[in-house]
Amino acid sequence: MNLDLVLENLEQSQMSAESRLFELLRFKSISTNSQYKSECFRTAEWLVKRLSEIGFSSSLRKTSGNPMVVAHSDTGTSDLLFYGHYDVQPVDPEYLWKTAPFEPVIENTSNGAVIRARGASDDKGQLMTFVEACRAIIAVNGKLPCKISVLLEGEEETSSPSLIPFLLEHGEELKSSHALVCDTGMWDESTPSITSSLRGMLAEEITIRGPDKDLHSGLFGGAVPNPLRVMAKLISGLHDADGKINIPNFYEGVEPVPLDLLKQWKALNFSEATFLEELDLSEPSGEKGFSTLEKLWSRPTCEINGIWGGYIDEGFKTVIPSEAHAKISFRLVGKQDPENIRKEFRKKLREELPLDFHITFSNHKGSKATQFSLDSKIMTETRGALTEEWGNETVFVGGGGSIPIVKHFKEILGMDTLLVGFALDDDQIHSPNEKYNLDSFHKGARSWVRILHKLSSLF
Amino acid sequence: MNLDLVLENLEQSQMSAESRLFELLRFKSISTNSQYKSECFRTAEWLVKRLSEIGFSSSLRKTSGNPMVVAHSDTGTSDLLFYGHYDVQPVDPEYLWKTAPFEPVIENTSNGAVIRARGASDDKGQLMTFVEACRAIIAVNGKLPCKISVLLEGEEETSSPSLIPFLLEHGEELKSSHALVCDTGMWDESTPSITSSLRGMLAEEITIRGPDKDLHSGLFGGAVPNPLRVMAKLISGLHDADGKINIPNFYEGVEPVPLDLLKQWKALNFSEATFLEELDLSEPSGEKGFSTLEKLWSRPTCEINGIWGGYIDEGFKTVIPSEAHAKISFRLVGKQDPENIRKEFRKKLREELPLDFHITFSNHKGSKATQFSLDSKIMTETRGALTEEWGNETVFVGGGGSIPIVKHFKEILGMDTLLVGFALDDDQIHSPNEKYNLDSFHKGARSWVRILHKLSSLF
Repeated sequence: MNLDLVLENLEQSQMSAESRLFELLRFKSISTNSQYKSECFRTAEWLVKRLSEIGFSSSLRKTSGNPMVVAHSDTGTSDLLFYGHYDVQPVDPEYLWKTAPFEPVIENTSNGAVIRARGASDDKGQLMTFVEACRAIIAVNGKLPCKISVLLEGEEETSSPSLIPFLLEHGEELKSSHALVCDTGMWDESTPSITSSLRGMLAEEITIRGPDKDLHSGLFGGAVPNPLRVMAKLISGLHDADGKINIPNFYEGVEPVPLDLLKQWKALNFSEATFLEELDLSEPSGEKGFSTLEKLWSRPTCEINGIWGGYIDEGFKTVIPSEAHAKISFRLVGKQDPENIRKEFRKKLREELPLDFHITFSNHKGSKATQFSLDSKIMTETRGALTEEWGNETVFVGGGGSIPIVKHFKEILGMDTLLVGFALDDDQIHSPNEKYNLDSFHKGARSWVRILHKLSSLF
Repeated sequence: MNLDLVLENLEQSQMSAESRLFELLRFKSISTNSQYKSECFRTAEWLVKRLSEIGFSSSLRKTSGNPMVVAHSDTGTSDLLFYGHYDVQPVDPEYLWKTAPFEPVIENTSNGAVIRARGASDDKGQLMTFVEACRAIIAVNGKLPCKISVLLEGEEETSSPSLIPFLLEHGEELKSSHALVCDTGMWDESTPSITSSLRGMLAEEITIRGPDKDLHSGLFGGAVPNPLRVMAKLISGLHDADGKINIPNFYEGVEPVPLDLLKQWKALNFSEATFLEELDLSEPSGEKGFSTLEKLWSRPTCEINGIWGGYIDEGFKTVIPSEAHAKISFRLVGKQDPENIRKEFRKKLREELPLDFHITFSNHKGSKATQFSLDSKIMTETRGALTEEWGNETVFVGGGGSIPIVKHFKEILGMDTLLVGFALDDDQIHSPNEKYNLDSFHKGARSWVRILHKLSSLF
């Protein structure tokens, strides 16, 4: 394919690309509220049509929830499977929006032009960067440089209930050599980024029980154990004074960050002061001896996500409750094993529990961290493509959270994923006034053209 | 007055006394639900009529809530003011009642005959012991041996909102030399008791705030402080390893129990094993070096009554909340000063709070402990009267909770209170199947006759 001609085509079709994205943004495809179910259906129909128009063999697939859009450029097993989602978050509180959330506009800001609408960034704008790239390549070149499939879902904002069944049922059709996901961001507006690791996750809900009923603190206080005090003590014991997690063998599998990656992170000139200031904080916290980026991208955590017990309504009730509850989650890195940690965590709490107390645990999800190889061919080619487009060195960034689709692709379809996206930290996804920089959209499409151009040599 | 004749009268009128109590018990005078407001009104009317019939000058007094019943045996300042309450707790869950809650019955149990109904013990049965005592004395003697006023309220089970305004407005009319309250219990079914101390109370609600908004624990976990962990640590720091409360100057004003009282408590042969067993516990807890009765009656406490923060609904949300909350209360003894302790408590928490955290406190009630003189004439005469009736030495017991009316009488009317009652631990007050032993009722009335007989010599 002639790269320059394709990029030239993108340059000349910017206006029509924007108007296509605007069409998509006008659909109120909110998945968290069933009243928008038919709107989600129409959004999927629009996408099927769009993909067909540019040359994909495309179809709408019903599920028990919102439909999937599946498209193939060729028959047979694809080289690449692109994933995105067409559903969006609710808009409330709507009165905080400066423009109507489903009437996209282009707005000139001090940081350049932006597209403002719900879903402009997450994920309609991002997925359309890929669709526009494919459109331009086929328009100029007649066909794509490798076999590509597309999977767009409509339930990402509501935990994707139909996704796993769909992957299980259509594994043969969807399985490709590699997956591409465009739902992440750039380090900043001029630094292209690949997300190269994701922390794993372990969640536990615990209930401790002491006296067999709620007791009056006047009649019993001082002579019976208080589950809320016991819970406070158990939680206080989970970290040591240096912020290290105080569970036997917890750090087994945690590996040091490779020196060159660490050097690259240092070069990002992350401003700790700004990070803290935006949260109304002044002092770094967490594990001693690590920078904030290291803590977020390469260190495991133990966080209390919820705690409750006793009387928690207005006024006062002098009760000593029978029970206390907490939700506790761990972020995992490297080769940490969630099930081993679950075992050690439970053992520790059971040992620290005073006599006469009972503890129960509710299982929640556990998943290992994901670490992509930094020097695979696909990584190297993609870095190169992004660097050429943006004129700045591509950086590897870490992901503090998890992106479930990455796990599902690996576990169900045996595919690795490449995480490339053009969102920015100030895109206000999930909040009022969501936006996507016009540069993210157009240079995003150009980036995919360059990436597909380079990757096609691998297949 | 001829004591024997009065007791004889009581003996012969047991059946009619029971039927009068049953009439009172049939009123559904639940004060916590406004749908029973007119029923409460009718209950008060019944009591006014009853007190008038036996010779009191009696009237119903409207308040903004349920009415008060006020009765006087004579004109001018009374010697004794008797207080009780005619309102009762709700009956739910009603399906747990073996008999209808407002259809009183006499039931023969392995521990003797009991009256079963809501309010049988708390406080209709108890207040009628006093009314029947007065009836019998007047019937035999023509008049009471001293000037007596009666105050019965209908909002005790709902924090007595009308009581303080009523006492303030009618102070001159109600102020007497001493108050009598029949709303407490006996040590056991054969040991008459006077409650000689009540613990004081201090309640604080605290909110701590760290990051200025809720944060995603994937994106921020490990690099920001978690208010739930901070709260757990603050709470863990409130007690030392021996169960002592770790607040500077907290124990100022705590006095050792007089040796003879301690000796009396030891003689009660309190069974720690039974106490624990009934709560499904096996090990004593609380402050080291004290018996359970000492802990409950003579030692101060610090209890966590409620704690909450973060995500506490079903499922999991990986949030680091901005805030954490707790309700904490102290029971106070001796001369402990609630306001000093409040000051020290707040100072300690402020000092222990990490940088970047804010703490706010909501004032709740504070009150000093009450300690009645054990060798006053009124105490000595009452002990003697109770011992004569029950044939066992009267004991002084402590009250772990507070009885607000005692404070109000002292602070508003300048009156000390005598706490004598005939309830038993197994009366199931506030629970289904409430009962009052028939012996508590009849011997309770006899006890009051003996007490009034003895006390009249003091006025």
